[in-house]
Amino acid sequence: MDVIESGWFSEIQNDLWPGQSFSLKVKKILHEENSKFQNIKIFDTETYGRCLVLDGIIQCTTKDEFAYQEMIAFLPLCCHPNPKKVLIVGGGDGGVSREVVKHPLVEEVYQVEIDDRVIELSRKHLPSMACGFNNKKLNLIVSDGFEYMQSNQQKFDVIITDSSDPIGPATSLFQEDYYKLMKNSLREGGIVCSQGGSFWLDCNYIKKQMSNCNIHFPQVAYAVTSVPSYPCGQIGFVIGCLDKSTNFKNPVKKFSSSEIDVMNLKYYTSSIHSSAFTLPRWIEKIFYGCA
Amino acid sequence: MDVIESGWFSEIQNDLWPGQSFSLKVKKILHEENSKFQNIKIFDTETYGRCLVLDGIIQCTTKDEFAYQEMIAFLPLCCHPNPKKVLIVGGGDGGVSREVVKHPLVEEVYQVEIDDRVIELSRKHLPSMACGFNNKKLNLIVSDGFEYMQSNQQKFDVIITDSSDPIGPATSLFQEDYYKLMKNSLREGGIVCSQGGSFWLDCNYIKKQMSNCNIHFPQVAYAVTSVPSYPCGQIGFVIGCLDKSTNFKNPVKKFSSSEIDVMNLKYYTSSIHSSAFTLPRWIEKIFYGCA
Repeated sequence: MDVIESGWFSEIQNDLWPGQSFSLKVKKILHEENSKFQNIKIFDTETYGRCLVLDGIIQCTTKDEFAYQEMIAFLPLCCHPNPKKVLIVGGGDGGVSREVVKHPLVEEVYQVEIDDRVIELSRKHLPSMACGFNNKKLNLIVSDGFEYMQSNQQKFDVIITDSSDPIGPATSLFQEDYYKLMKNSLREGGIVCSQGGSFWLDCNYIKKQMSNCNIHFPQVAYAVTSVPSYPCGQIGFVIGCLDKSTNFKNPVKKFSSSEIDVMNLKYYTSSIHSSAFTLPRWIEKIFYGCA
Repeated sequence: MDVIESGWFSEIQNDLWPGQSFSLKVKKILHEENSKFQNIKIFDTETYGRCLVLDGIIQCTTKDEFAYQEMIAFLPLCCHPNPKKVLIVGGGDGGVSREVVKHPLVEEVYQVEIDDRVIELSRKHLPSMACGFNNKKLNLIVSDGFEYMQSNQQKFDVIITDSSDPIGPATSLFQEDYYKLMKNSLREGGIVCSQGGSFWLDCNYIKKQMSNCNIHFPQVAYAVTSVPSYPCGQIGFVIGCLDKSTNFKNPVKKFSSSEIDVMNLKYYTSSIHSSAFTLPRWIEKIFYGCA
């Protein structure tokens, strides 16, 4: 497991990022418990604000969480011409719902989080994220995302999977049958967006996830954002859509700078959207086989 | 100082990135010495290849160095219509010169590195970077960059400063008089590009560096690249040019995919070039005051 030693928190060593370790100086430990699903830690850091850790892995810090939440929300939303109804799977800290409800065309958001303790502890200790739960567009359901989708078919325009990494409880959210399930829960022209890891780590794993998505979605792409508290300082998203004419790099909804500022977006802009899909040459070749 | 404890190397704690620490698992220590200028360590890591550390700070690893070297070289080179003569200040590992000489319009490269021990040790332990020193376009000078430029006025089309961070010996390379000196060493239409740190750290310091540059260069911009072994997983470049009509985001030299592959570029493409100048909303506001 992770260690908090001599005032520093270091991530557990695992097969997803062997040989490297990121550490944060801890100011104060606020909470630790084992829920039914996982070990939960919340602490204040010296320079990254407040930090949520699940099973020894940093999920978010208040310094940089917006770079992740805004991107996983607005990349799919802005590729959809009319994202009225959105499903969020996971995202128990509330940060993704906080962003999704900002989009003016979004009318209803359903969020299914399996661990109610993450929700409750985020309400208490991470109010700047958990404020997402208070929006009247949001319906929060404590349940298993798989089961929820099985009984909710052809209902959503966008499905966002804000999961932890593919070890432990979230493993199934990266498999082919999960993409099949999402496809069946989407309405015509639907889009999915899932946490997809860093291309500096196992890019063949990402490619596999993209292939799983591609079995059910005619178009698949990978986009990236900079998040210093995640391994390698970045995280990506695997995004798939049912409409063959979608151009991921060119969002159908483009917000002006003043609209961006009114929504209090700190990271996302339409230019950042396009850039996020631009990949280094060696990754472009691996993911898309570009000649 | 840094520590190599229980098989892990951790960066020293310093004022540039307080409260956070990146560690690499060490396989074998190859060399350590104190040169006239700095402490030098070279070791093999478990998952990042070979690593060069100066004064306790990671300078490069063979896993990810290309993302830095290609970008600091090709961003300014591809913004210049005819970059015949290039000066590199620093860059003692050879990686930047390895990239600069690849550009087909570059005829002569002068590189001024102050610490001959970094050069010698890189030749021995980092041959995949130090190969840059063997190119016949390159003239390698062991000297102080300041002094060299004072006696070499109006000579260069592009000046690249591949320095360590603004603590210790490299501090002066971030000040206004350094930009003045570079301006005087440039020919008409010249471009400068310097290591500029991560926007997740002290973005006001970067803004100050950009202002220092802007005193002598009518156009200044900041571009970014992803490098997991650097603090926050990214590093930026402050780039300035004498020609007011330069559009940094739109390189005058655009390489085709096959040209990129012939030059063995793994990171840089013309699309990556443009994306590198696209900044998150909050940084765009701080750096450019965009309304």
